[in-house]
Amino acid sequence: MKPLRLTMENQVPYVPEPAIRRLPWYLACVTRLRTQGVEYVSSTAISHELNVDASQIAKDLSYLNIKGKTRIGYEVVELERGLIDFLGFHREHKAVMMGVGSLGAALMADSGLSRYGLNIVAGFDVNPAVVGTSLGGKPIYALEELSDRVRELEAEIAVIAVPVESAAEVAELCVKAGIKALWNFTPFRIKPSADVAISNTSIYAHLAVMYNRMHE
Amino acid sequence: MKPLRLTMENQVPYVPEPAIRRLPWYLACVTRLRTQGVEYVSSTAISHELNVDASQIAKDLSYLNIKGKTRIGYEVVELERGLIDFLGFHREHKAVMMGVGSLGAALMADSGLSRYGLNIVAGFDVNPAVVGTSLGGKPIYALEELSDRVRELEAEIAVIAVPVESAAEVAELCVKAGIKALWNFTPFRIKPSADVAISNTSIYAHLAVMYNRMHE
Repeated sequence: MKPLRLTMENQVPYVPEPAIRRLPWYLACVTRLRTQGVEYVSSTAISHELNVDASQIAKDLSYLNIKGKTRIGYEVVELERGLIDFLGFHREHKAVMMGVGSLGAALMADSGLSRYGLNIVAGFDVNPAVVGTSLGGKPIYALEELSDRVRELEAEIAVIAVPVESAAEVAELCVKAGIKALWNFTPFRIKPSADVAISNTSIYAHLAVMYNRMHE
Repeated sequence: MKPLRLTMENQVPYVPEPAIRRLPWYLACVTRLRTQGVEYVSSTAISHELNVDASQIAKDLSYLNIKGKTRIGYEVVELERGLIDFLGFHREHKAVMMGVGSLGAALMADSGLSRYGLNIVAGFDVNPAVVGTSLGGKPIYALEELSDRVRELEAEIAVIAVPVESAAEVAELCVKAGIKALWNFTPFRIKPSADVAISNTSIYAHLAVMYNRMHE
């Protein structure tokens, strides 16, 4: 039996989703300041850089128990470390890629994800032409092997990039296989569930918003 | 001088961003119904499928001037066509890829984007090792050539996947080159502007939300 440790995992405070989404902006901002040798930064300075209200920034950071000093602001190194810690980008999260078609293969090839803590260790597909091959050194298995492989690989996350009509079924298979979080890139909306964390990231929705705003 | 035409581009109604983001869900849903041979669908049925409130769905669709019939619902084929038309997925939008590193190259290779109307016609990079080469048949040019090439290629959109510390500068270069919309994949937040449509799509922010929810 593993000893009980009070790690970040056990202590993560509740932070509203819109606040969590803003945190990577702050991180990108303070990382840049740190590489420029800046030691302290105020929420006003971050606000000016990102066009987010300074009081909003202070509130978001207070969720993480990060507080600036009056007239000095936040210590840049400490703020950067606090954000990385909270966001979980420094820890390895093992993931499987569901569907290694165009987008799936592209995401498996994106080494950037591993810098944010996501390690895609294998892919799954129904296409006999790709099952048994590998991509960037990672094996592609048949969908039927999902349960066994997830256990063996100790994967927690499934990245879903299958054709939209298979998304619901594949999501269900992942949950049955013991997956704890679904990162869904299809335009199908996976319903919220108590058993798994779901992130519906339809990049095509962003595309739709952009097209619309272009033509206004 | 081009004749003035009353095309979709000139007539796009104002729709709030959260509504636009939901429309691709409805589209995925009705496309599936259409392939199953279903002729009519109610907002209640869509609601059940997507876990979005039925009155919300009816309201979102009314922005597009799509109205269901009492006791019958929406005609599936008409609804699908209306959504695709409004979302702009059937029109070609020419785009350039800024930065063909890991994520940039992956997005250029994702043929899925072209099915949603985005045609990436060229890439730009500062790395002499890739400038002058091509990717999936699309040329990679030096960043200095941006203005000339954007004009020549008639590109309207720039997809930004450069290192985060270069994002601000590259965005500015794109606007100067006459680009009308920026699709930003870096964690840097590009500030809203009157001149260009901006979509900040930080996939890493979604990752952060998912990690957080996993450990709750």
